[in-house]
Amino acid sequence: MSVTQPTLPPLLMRYRDEIIRGLKEAVCGSSLLFRMMRFSLGLEDPSGQALDGLGKALRPTLCLFACEALGGEWRKALPAAVALELVHNFSLVHDDIQDGAKERRHRPTVWAVWGVGQAINVGDALHALSSLVLCQVSDTEALRLLSQATLEMIEGQHLDLEYERCLDLTVQDHLKMISKKTGALMACALELGALLGGADPKTREIFKNAGQDLGLAFQIRDDTLGIWGSEESTGKPASDLWKKKRTLPVIYALENTQSRTRVLEYLKSEHLTEEDINALKALLEEIGAKRYAQGLATSYARRALQALKGASLPSWAWKEAQELVDFLVHREL
Amino acid sequence: MSVTQPTLPPLLMRYRDEIIRGLKEAVCGSSLLFRMMRFSLGLEDPSGQALDGLGKALRPTLCLFACEALGGEWRKALPAAVALELVHNFSLVHDDIQDGAKERRHRPTVWAVWGVGQAINVGDALHALSSLVLCQVSDTEALRLLSQATLEMIEGQHLDLEYERCLDLTVQDHLKMISKKTGALMACALELGALLGGADPKTREIFKNAGQDLGLAFQIRDDTLGIWGSEESTGKPASDLWKKKRTLPVIYALENTQSRTRVLEYLKSEHLTEEDINALKALLEEIGAKRYAQGLATSYARRALQALKGASLPSWAWKEAQELVDFLVHREL
Repeated sequence: MSVTQPTLPPLLMRYRDEIIRGLKEAVCGSSLLFRMMRFSLGLEDPSGQALDGLGKALRPTLCLFACEALGGEWRKALPAAVALELVHNFSLVHDDIQDGAKERRHRPTVWAVWGVGQAINVGDALHALSSLVLCQVSDTEALRLLSQATLEMIEGQHLDLEYERCLDLTVQDHLKMISKKTGALMACALELGALLGGADPKTREIFKNAGQDLGLAFQIRDDTLGIWGSEESTGKPASDLWKKKRTLPVIYALENTQSRTRVLEYLKSEHLTEEDINALKALLEEIGAKRYAQGLATSYARRALQALKGASLPSWAWKEAQELVDFLVHREL
Repeated sequence: MSVTQPTLPPLLMRYRDEIIRGLKEAVCGSSLLFRMMRFSLGLEDPSGQALDGLGKALRPTLCLFACEALGGEWRKALPAAVALELVHNFSLVHDDIQDGAKERRHRPTVWAVWGVGQAINVGDALHALSSLVLCQVSDTEALRLLSQATLEMIEGQHLDLEYERCLDLTVQDHLKMISKKTGALMACALELGALLGGADPKTREIFKNAGQDLGLAFQIRDDTLGIWGSEESTGKPASDLWKKKRTLPVIYALENTQSRTRVLEYLKSEHLTEEDINALKALLEEIGAKRYAQGLATSYARRALQALKGASLPSWAWKEAQELVDFLVHREL
């Protein structure tokens, strides 16, 4: 079965050059620590050669889009956009240490190149830099929003690790965890953009709620891609099933009496074969775990759009929001 | 030889209850992540029992002192004081992972109790919380100062790890590293207090410079305590010499032709005995490394006081500043 690779929607391209410029400016220091930060952002290879390896830059884009959609001057929100990408990347650098992941986006992870100790420092430096950059907007409310969301994201990461030891996870537990780990920063991205676009409190709340739902949709799509996506497009090697990640389809199968025993056997097994993994994949499809996950992603995505309707966006913005949401739940990367 | 334990100067006791109250409020969440944060701050044991194990709380005290000495209402600076202690503790939690240190202040370290992954999260959460708490003062300049100092502190930590692999360190390299790793946050503590006490730019600069020098004095004293201090009072097990830490006395001895060869042998040795360590200690004293370090600490401390003279403090504050500085360079803990 050939997979059609969706192209990035125009919205994800519109601010991209400016986001990259802002990021480069933020991490332009000459010391090795800054080189490592540039590497982690995909701006350089380990030897210091320039690269164009930044990810989708989804969070900065959401922030700038919210600002522009509300009639704000999006360039004024650039420091917030850059800060969001720095926070996101800090979380990836630390997450890769915690997961023992040696590759991300077809490149080695920071700890795999420079060791765990320095990778901890790189994450910490990106985190500190995010606040410093955001100070440029001179708005303590913006800083409060970002710090609050960062803390929630870390709580999500904390729960994620806690859950690794737990065999009785429910879909509800998982959704609570990803609403923090992924939802909080997406919600913050849209709310920050709205705040800097001059939104009133009610509109800010609308954007925040939409971001929260979008984050859930995004992460659930990520969970299905982790099992059924192709390594080539996601840039993440091997299936999450090899790593025994308790992602949504697996938890769904744990809650299903028809599949629970076999999933538990798999989780406890010490020697997994290619055959085991394929059998598990087939089982998950058979009991409808893939369909369930995709359905849930779609319904969160719809709810995000439904929320946004309350903000009475201009028609160009409404159209772009729809395109983006559609891309996020159907993306292959 | 019996060591006289200096008592804490009154200044370090004056704000202590309020600092503890502020910290408790900041980390009052009920989840395990918050319990781990309370543990890292010395407020609870691993099972959740209340403890009074906070350290000297030097940075918060410096901040509140600067504010009060300039005629400000120190209680208004409490969020800044709390934020400084959170940043300091975040750095300790990550530092302990990087050093593989299993104990600190007579208690197990966070990673030793909950593992490396969760300890990374605890440090990250303390870091995020520091910004969130500081937002309470509604002053973007305060947030800028703290983020900038945090970033510098991380740069220092980065250099510290880099230097571990380097045999040709100079005293100058080391001073540059500790001026970032320790000096930046001390400078920030005094400058933040001055800012919130209503200082003009010139006075802020004076406090910042004094904090920078005080940080150097403090760290150099730490370096000598790490070799000649008693485990009982410092709460850190064993001598830094066992860990081959390149602290100031060792680097001084590396720069000295009389001792360089023997110090290199020690650094390369794979099996150190009690005898080796004692011989090295004696060598360091013989070539004057201990005297040199203590002299340098004293001279930075003097420079800090000299700087503060420019701020025309009221006499009570001047007296307390002198007592504190005197304590910091002679402390045994």
